[in-house]
Amino acid sequence: MARSDGRSPEQLRTVRIEKDYLIHPEGSVLITMGKTKVICTATIEEKVPPFQKGSGKGWVTAEYAMLPRATGTRTQRESTRGKQQGRTMEIQRLIGRALRSIVDLQRLGERTIWIDCDVIQADGGTRTAAITGAFIALHEACAKLLQKGSIQQTPLLQQLAAISVGKVNNQLLLDLCYEEDSQAEVDMNVVMTGDGKFVELQGTAEGVPFSRQDMDGMIRLAQKGINELLEIQRKIINK
Amino acid sequence: MARSDGRSPEQLRTVRIEKDYLIHPEGSVLITMGKTKVICTATIEEKVPPFQKGSGKGWVTAEYAMLPRATGTRTQRESTRGKQQGRTMEIQRLIGRALRSIVDLQRLGERTIWIDCDVIQADGGTRTAAITGAFIALHEACAKLLQKGSIQQTPLLQQLAAISVGKVNNQLLLDLCYEEDSQAEVDMNVVMTGDGKFVELQGTAEGVPFSRQDMDGMIRLAQKGINELLEIQRKIINK
Amino acid sequence: MARSDGRSPEQLRTVRIEKDYLIHPEGSVLITMGKTKVICTATIEEKVPPFQKGSGKGWVTAEYAMLPRATGTRTQRESTRGKQQGRTMEIQRLIGRALRSIVDLQRLGERTIWIDCDVIQADGGTRTAAITGAFIALHEACAKLLQKGSIQQTPLLQQLAAISVGKVNNQLLLDLCYEEDSQAEVDMNVVMTGDGKFVELQGTAEGVPFSRQDMDGMIRLAQKGINELLEIQRKIINK
Amino acid sequence: MARSDGRSPEQLRTVRIEKDYLIHPEGSVLITMGKTKVICTATIEEKVPPFQKGSGKGWVTAEYAMLPRATGTRTQRESTRGKQQGRTMEIQRLIGRALRSIVDLQRLGERTIWIDCDVIQADGGTRTAAITGAFIALHEACAKLLQKGSIQQTPLLQQLAAISVGKVNNQLLLDLCYEEDSQAEVDMNVVMTGDGKFVELQGTAEGVPFSRQDMDGMIRLAQKGINELLEIQRKIINK
Amino acid sequence: MARSDGRSPEQLRTVRIEKDYLIHPEGSVLITMGKTKVICTATIEEKVPPFQKGSGKGWVTAEYAMLPRATGTRTQRESTRGKQQGRTMEIQRLIGRALRSIVDLQRLGERTIWIDCDVIQADGGTRTAAITGAFIALHEACAKLLQKGSIQQTPLLQQLAAISVGKVNNQLLLDLCYEEDSQAEVDMNVVMTGDGKFVELQGTAEGVPFSRQDMDGMIRLAQKGINELLEIQRKIINK
Amino acid sequence: MARSDGRSPEQLRTVRIEKDYLIHPEGSVLITMGKTKVICTATIEEKVPPFQKGSGKGWVTAEYAMLPRATGTRTQRESTRGKQQGRTMEIQRLIGRALRSIVDLQRLGERTIWIDCDVIQADGGTRTAAITGAFIALHEACAKLLQKGSIQQTPLLQQLAAISVGKVNNQLLLDLCYEEDSQAEVDMNVVMTGDGKFVELQGTAEGVPFSRQDMDGMIRLAQKGINELLEIQRKIINK
Repeated sequence: MARSDGRSPEQLRTVRIEKDYLIHPEGSVLITMGKTKVICTATIEEKVPPFQKGSGKGWVTAEYAMLPRATGTRTQRESTRGKQQGRTMEIQRLIGRALRSIVDLQRLGERTIWIDCDVIQADGGTRTAAITGAFIALHEACAKLLQKGSIQQTPLLQQLAAISVGKVNNQLLLDLCYEEDSQAEVDMNVVMTGDGKFVELQGTAEGVPFSRQDMDGMIRLAQKGINELLEIQRKIINK
Repeated sequence: MARSDGRSPEQLRTVRIEKDYLIHPEGSVLITMGKTKVICTATIEEKVPPFQKGSGKGWVTAEYAMLPRATGTRTQRESTRGKQQGRTMEIQRLIGRALRSIVDLQRLGERTIWIDCDVIQADGGTRTAAITGAFIALHEACAKLLQKGSIQQTPLLQQLAAISVGKVNNQLLLDLCYEEDSQAEVDMNVVMTGDGKFVELQGTAEGVPFSRQDMDGMIRLAQKGINELLEIQRKIINK
Repeated sequence: MARSDGRSPEQLRTVRIEKDYLIHPEGSVLITMGKTKVICTATIEEKVPPFQKGSGKGWVTAEYAMLPRATGTRTQRESTRGKQQGRTMEIQRLIGRALRSIVDLQRLGERTIWIDCDVIQADGGTRTAAITGAFIALHEACAKLLQKGSIQQTPLLQQLAAISVGKVNNQLLLDLCYEEDSQAEVDMNVVMTGDGKFVELQGTAEGVPFSRQDMDGMIRLAQKGINELLEIQRKIINK
Repeated sequence: MARSDGRSPEQLRTVRIEKDYLIHPEGSVLITMGKTKVICTATIEEKVPPFQKGSGKGWVTAEYAMLPRATGTRTQRESTRGKQQGRTMEIQRLIGRALRSIVDLQRLGERTIWIDCDVIQADGGTRTAAITGAFIALHEACAKLLQKGSIQQTPLLQQLAAISVGKVNNQLLLDLCYEEDSQAEVDMNVVMTGDGKFVELQGTAEGVPFSRQDMDGMIRLAQKGINELLEIQRKIINK
Repeated sequence: MARSDGRSPEQLRTVRIEKDYLIHPEGSVLITMGKTKVICTATIEEKVPPFQKGSGKGWVTAEYAMLPRATGTRTQRESTRGKQQGRTMEIQRLIGRALRSIVDLQRLGERTIWIDCDVIQADGGTRTAAITGAFIALHEACAKLLQKGSIQQTPLLQQLAAISVGKVNNQLLLDLCYEEDSQAEVDMNVVMTGDGKFVELQGTAEGVPFSRQDMDGMIRLAQKGINELLEIQRKIINK
Repeated sequence: MARSDGRSPEQLRTVRIEKDYLIHPEGSVLITMGKTKVICTATIEEKVPPFQKGSGKGWVTAEYAMLPRATGTRTQRESTRGKQQGRTMEIQRLIGRALRSIVDLQRLGERTIWIDCDVIQADGGTRTAAITGAFIALHEACAKLLQKGSIQQTPLLQQLAAISVGKVNNQLLLDLCYEEDSQAEVDMNVVMTGDGKFVELQGTAEGVPFSRQDMDGMIRLAQKGINELLEIQRKIINK
């Protein structure tokens, strides 16, 4: 059965990562996956949160937001609403946690890297695109620290990329667009390292509980997609 | 290697579920898992959120909180802080989503069931204990609706229970207490239905990415633990 | 005229105070007065608020909250609402002020004792039950400080207990339950010390202004009830 | 022993109530008690809060605030702080409750009277001055309703006035100024009706618990002071 | 065409500035312009905001608010609403910026002067009245600093006054009252120094864009009005 | 004296307006002025705010924000801070007011057009770029309404564009970049219509009050710049 945009079930959308997208941040990319577009920036701050002070270790934290018209109908700004929504908090906690899993905070030293992921246009998979793009922004920021001699060794222990998979109309699909995501029976986000280990695995039954067999199928699809993303990242880094 | 409380790696803590714990709610339990204690209540409200109005369908939603001294050091109240923290939002979204996956909202009719999970004492696994206990509170509330003739058929399609598993000191463990959880390399929360399907699977590498083999081992442990919890639930329901 | 629960006008409800109710806090009790149940905890923090710094004196402060289904209909969480309500603030200010009146802050030294009163089940008289229970939790925490040698002398100058009295259907009653409270013409909360002095006296006409004679009658009733509570406290302390 | 401003222990400060102080409100006064100055306004709104809708009854509610430099050192604005403080909430709840006790809400009909008390200059006794002044503003607003024929009978059942009393340096004093209040061992606020009944009685031991005898002495002083305030109110109303 | 209050188009309303209006602040005035009444106070605080620390320079900042019944219909308190409105922020930023433009922050030294402008009664032109009055309050506060020897030279470089002008029914008018302001096609606020320079110029087309010729006419009117205000200020200062 | 980017004092930066920048909104552009980049979107909502209900008239309102790393150092998100800052409110009120001045709300009918201006990269002049870009987004949205037959006549009465001018190092400059803006003695934002009328004029002395002659010079520069912007807009509209 054909997908709405003509892809095969195991096919990623077109991925594009523009490095040095903005002039101010220490690292910045615009990542495009199909119609989903996310600006990811990395900011170096020469201090750490209170719980890390005096530890000799740094910190990596992330924030995530969507422009009001990133979506089909306008979403109220969280600044006007006066607080961040649960979905936003959940996503930014995921991004921060995932990135920290591949960073040696000791090597980073007592500084914080802020990752900001702002969705300019949303068509499904914004949180996984954010992680895949943020890795490149983080990589650029670390390269600047190395170049300035602020650190001696890159704190990045691994590459990191993420993708969504799901079950839609009884079929397992890779890299769901919004239309597919909104009909999915199961939705799974997978974050993996460059050496094929898992960092996060979040599978959710949207109405229909799923079997062990479905889980295995989705994980296999995710591994395939992430391998392609890691390859794209490597090309950009080595440019 | 023995666990801090003498359990074997595949052993649950002592579980106790007290039904009708409070006089006011339509359903209420105190669930105890080792030293973790959570009050779960179910409240029936004869209206639905705006997005569900006129649909003929009901809604199930959850809120989660901890008393300030549920924990070893005092946690500031979220009411004083002026907002809920990301962790709280993430947990209550999980609880609500998990419960909705086994409820037929059409059969429930245009009413909301509020699930409140308040942690009186925390020693790890509060979110999974909350789900396991909330299922019983929800079951009681549905029983009241049936008894009053407000609904003709139970909206509960399945039983639901949850457990945490993890990898600690290179060993896979079932039902982590706080001490184990704080040292875990990997932490996974699993929610399953009475017929052995998955509803939620959230695995997180706390510092060390994990292999496919570890994942499979943790899932097997979780299935074992959840089967025991489902059995305990059945005894309570059938009393 | 009989009361709804069969008590005589001058009779307290059944009072029960469970010491060491929770494992984490420095002091903790579950106080039950009829159907009203309040968890009171005392937390020692080795610092003081800014206005007390360098004074050599400590501080005692209280927070109060109700679980959403402590009440007959569900009350919205104050954390969701984004702020504490006026009633909550009024009650926690009362509890803190009352406890400070019997504490020698100099002897306590530069540390804070946080009192948390969380109502698990409400049936009238929650603020007075909170004070009576909090005294025991505070007593336990001070005993720990003495035992550890952090202080040389107990900072507690007196015992402290509280009760509500009121005028319902033209009759003066001791220890109002919710049903009585909601019909009361006058409602009075009284806080007294172990040596029979007044710490707080708050009488409010709910619709019908009251005479000097009614006031005197209510104060006499309150004194009687508080004497019984002080006796119960003494038994627990001396156990 | 002479008081700081030369008054005898049983003497009120100079009281002045300017009617029609502002052009916009339905009722407005500037009440001056010594150096304490409070603007009290009454606003008629032709609707009631949700809990009163369809009852045929009206509502009276109060808000209280202080200008930042009403006090000796600048107080941060509550609008900048983002919320009202506990003290403010406690005071405005007291004012609203006290006024409602002398209003027949049925006669008022389904409308709300908002009482706003804004302290321009504070020197102790602002909450009691606010009540005494608010009564006149409320009276003016009710007179306008009668005049317009919106109501047939005044909803005011009684006059209402309030005063503070206290024990300072072992002496009972009427109408404490700020300097006295800040040294008081006991502080009591009393609200009474025109026919000598009590509406509110709030006695607080500031450090030193007080005896029954002190309480009786303070109540006697308060009655004397309130009688004088009621007389001043009558002169203004009858002008 | 006559104005509603009988003034000629180029005529100010009656202006009155009462110095030393309150007892607590270092500077305070009540400024009355027609029916508009604003209390302006100046508070000296011996510290500066973080961005100014260690610079040797001081700071001047302003806050603005209206009493709920300063207006024809009651305005909700910003403290109840939980935040300041855009209009309030805009006005207080204008007042602070305008005052800073005539203050030598170096001469002021590392201290902050807080300007509080509270509108007691509003009838148009509250922000310009606030600036004109705040200058006098600021002048008083600086005089106190000089007198105490805290500073050697006045930090005030110029006088400062402000006025509104507008185009109503095709006619240019000075000092708009509320009725005129609400019908104005163009509304302009002008802030000028004692030596005839501009500090702020804010012209806004309320529905009808305006020509260069109108702009010139309004500026001329504003200059005339401000000259009269400067003269009034001088008389007060020299008293 | 050469400007930092080599421009002459009367020269605009390179302007680029990309129409249809995003897929979801009814109108959207990316406007680039030098290094300043703003996404402007227009959203049609088929309802109006309460104050406009039943009037037959529509509404136009604007919101403005900056990405955290639009600026040289990271700016905290307003959603994390819990509220919008004064600067943000001031700017979005300006944008909304300016756009409404050229819209016939009657012709728009009872619908709202939301304008969202999100600064992706900031280098001075973001508010004026937002207005110039928002006009095109608004124009696109109106074109869609006309095309669908929802309205019969365009509600746009005029073109609208804006520019900043200032005095830097004693020289009058058009279209200030951030470096110039931060050194400016005077800063003026001008909004004009296609027929050369003024809609907003906001001149601010940043430290040094300015003369009438400076004002006239700046207005002349602004008129020149705006004429060029209007020409650029016309080319885009007519494409």
